[in-house]
Amino acid sequence: MWQDLKPIGRNPESGGYRRYAWTGADAECRAWFEAQARSRGLTYELDRNGNQWAWLGDPAQGNAVVTGSHLDSVPDGGPFDGPLGVVSAFAALDELRRRGAEFTRPLAIVNFGDEEGARFGLACVGSRLTAGQLTPEQAHRLRDADGITLPQAMERAGHDPEAIGPDPDRLARIGAFVELHVEQGRALDLSGDRIGIASAIWPHGRWRFDFRGEANHAGTTRLVDRRDPMLSYAETVLAARREAELAGAVATFGKISVEPNGVNAIPSLVRGWLDSRAADQATLDTVVEGIEKAAREYGDRHGIELDVVRESFTPVVEFEHALRDEMARILGEGRDTDIRVPVLGTGAGHDAGILSGSIPTAMLFVRNPTGVSHSPAEYASEDDCLAGVTALADVLEGLACK
Amino acid sequence: MWQDLKPIGRNPESGGYRRYAWTGADAECRAWFEAQARSRGLTYELDRNGNQWAWLGDPAQGNAVVTGSHLDSVPDGGPFDGPLGVVSAFAALDELRRRGAEFTRPLAIVNFGDEEGARFGLACVGSRLTAGQLTPEQAHRLRDADGITLPQAMERAGHDPEAIGPDPDRLARIGAFVELHVEQGRALDLSGDRIGIASAIWPHGRWRFDFRGEANHAGTTRLVDRRDPMLSYAETVLAARREAELAGAVATFGKISVEPNGVNAIPSLVRGWLDSRAADQATLDTVVEGIEKAAREYGDRHGIELDVVRESFTPVVEFEHALRDEMARILGEGRDTDIRVPVLGTGAGHDAGILSGSIPTAMLFVRNPTGVSHSPAEYASEDDCLAGVTALADVLEGLACK
Repeated sequence: MWQDLKPIGRNPESGGYRRYAWTGADAECRAWFEAQARSRGLTYELDRNGNQWAWLGDPAQGNAVVTGSHLDSVPDGGPFDGPLGVVSAFAALDELRRRGAEFTRPLAIVNFGDEEGARFGLACVGSRLTAGQLTPEQAHRLRDADGITLPQAMERAGHDPEAIGPDPDRLARIGAFVELHVEQGRALDLSGDRIGIASAIWPHGRWRFDFRGEANHAGTTRLVDRRDPMLSYAETVLAARREAELAGAVATFGKISVEPNGVNAIPSLVRGWLDSRAADQATLDTVVEGIEKAAREYGDRHGIELDVVRESFTPVVEFEHALRDEMARILGEGRDTDIRVPVLGTGAGHDAGILSGSIPTAMLFVRNPTGVSHSPAEYASEDDCLAGVTALADVLEGLACK
Repeated sequence: MWQDLKPIGRNPESGGYRRYAWTGADAECRAWFEAQARSRGLTYELDRNGNQWAWLGDPAQGNAVVTGSHLDSVPDGGPFDGPLGVVSAFAALDELRRRGAEFTRPLAIVNFGDEEGARFGLACVGSRLTAGQLTPEQAHRLRDADGITLPQAMERAGHDPEAIGPDPDRLARIGAFVELHVEQGRALDLSGDRIGIASAIWPHGRWRFDFRGEANHAGTTRLVDRRDPMLSYAETVLAARREAELAGAVATFGKISVEPNGVNAIPSLVRGWLDSRAADQATLDTVVEGIEKAAREYGDRHGIELDVVRESFTPVVEFEHALRDEMARILGEGRDTDIRVPVLGTGAGHDAGILSGSIPTAMLFVRNPTGVSHSPAEYASEDDCLAGVTALADVLEGLACK
């Protein structure tokens, strides 16, 4: 099952994956999902927002248990972020059937569309639309780097963009959503555990910093006559690191766009994107305010205009305590393994975080010894992945079976 | 004449020009040149390297006086850099005909191809090829941002790429080349003069700095576990400014390329291009060594690998003293104006600098009160442009007429 998915959307140079929403690679991943669903006799369904569902039992019965994740990737991402949750969901169902489990609640496996936001800049579009956290009007304005709008991309991929919008009836039928995901960090590796349960997702935002100066000739413009926004940008990148260190948070400038971007031209515009996250809202506010203050002070002294726009924001997500405790109980008691399952927070956003506003959600993490993610170096051992499947099967059995 | 050229290759958003070598805008500029030549009864000629020539008199006579410049632009460049020298050349010829000048030497007006290097990254391709400072093999390896090679681009524009190469016979027929150019700096504005004569072009190089770290998730990777090349880049940008200030030189990072360039990904690679120039070679060496040292020291402490490649280099160019003195004499004596014509150095590269290795060359600068160039804000007043035409006509008359 894992092998079929491996070559799709892979960049042969980096070994990383480029599975962006509504592209050819995305369509191949979707075809794979549908084939997996049908080969298991599950009822396949594509919802109005482009999320794929595979049902065992009658959804109309309500109180369904849902598991799954996403199949799209960041630019040159690793093989596990997303697909591990979907593959493990199918594998856990196979395991439950081997065990002869009898289901008392409907079960579904889901692939949420456009989780990474690699193409249109906004993460979790599929789950946001479903949960009503993104309006169709806002979604229609999303545009990729080539100027193609989300509706145009959806249409080209054969999906009706007019159909998108909130789907409260669907959510009302779901009693619990459990997402399994490779850990994006080294907490489990440092504690020596294979599997963990998520406690919370840190608050998280993206800010665009536009530094505007004056384009000029790099060879003939005296230093004192320059208004070079690249200098402001550089000061701000270093300020971000300083502020994050002070606060025990993270802050990253990973994306930049420069005009005119010529070797012999002082730039007129440097646009840098800040990603920052912290354990709580007050800390995050302090960090971002500190970075913006440093950027303004430097810019004011050097004739650089600065605009800061918050492009996205997700407040802190505490996963539902009842479901989390129930999972800890299932994984702690009566199992024939002596695996400890710690509870840990994470800085990464997930569809489970979006849906937690509407329905009880929880997450399982599988150890990633490199701590690396969003890169081809992302890794999970086969033993740890199998431990993840067993844990997910145990949770689903505990929640949905006699 | 100026009006016909104005709309070609103009970006309506910025008001700047995008006239890149072997594009449609370049072809329109070339058609304009040919039409100007033919309407004056000049002999039009396209040489093997894509440079355009308009001859008055028989080139075979030898010891020709040539004037002109280039019509291509940097990204979003101003209207004067290049075209002013070509337009002024035609206008000076018109002025000489009005004066009834009798030519004793052949005269040519030239438009050198691909001076700015905006598309293929190397400046002065047309004159370098002609002077044998760039081999056809090297030129064939040039590639634009879309991967199109120079030969492919030439072919698409209807020019035979196999014909390119050194053209010593052509150069042997030229006795002097005088290039008029808008000043790229504020020296004339500060001294209060309309026109200046170039003394020398500063030595100039371009270096590519490749900072390699490790791609990782911006939300979940602890600061201590990061190898973030954007931090090294930022330190190096600030070091460049510091080193240039100390040495009275210029150093600029105006172009950058980041992988994967995602908002939520720590970059694996940040590639920054340094442009640096100084009044003499020793100073330039000191500046670039200082920048590289700072970059390495910071990178070594943070696990960043650094490769520095010198992509291009032009040593100091002293314009020929005899021609320069002759021009100063012509412009200083017997003129019915009281215009002072100072002699000044420049940090900008020019075709005249390339050709100075093969033939006597000189340059005239026209005042640019903003000091801004390579930007839509580049400016020269109509009066100053007309003073430039008069001065160029005087020089041509002094050199080529009875």
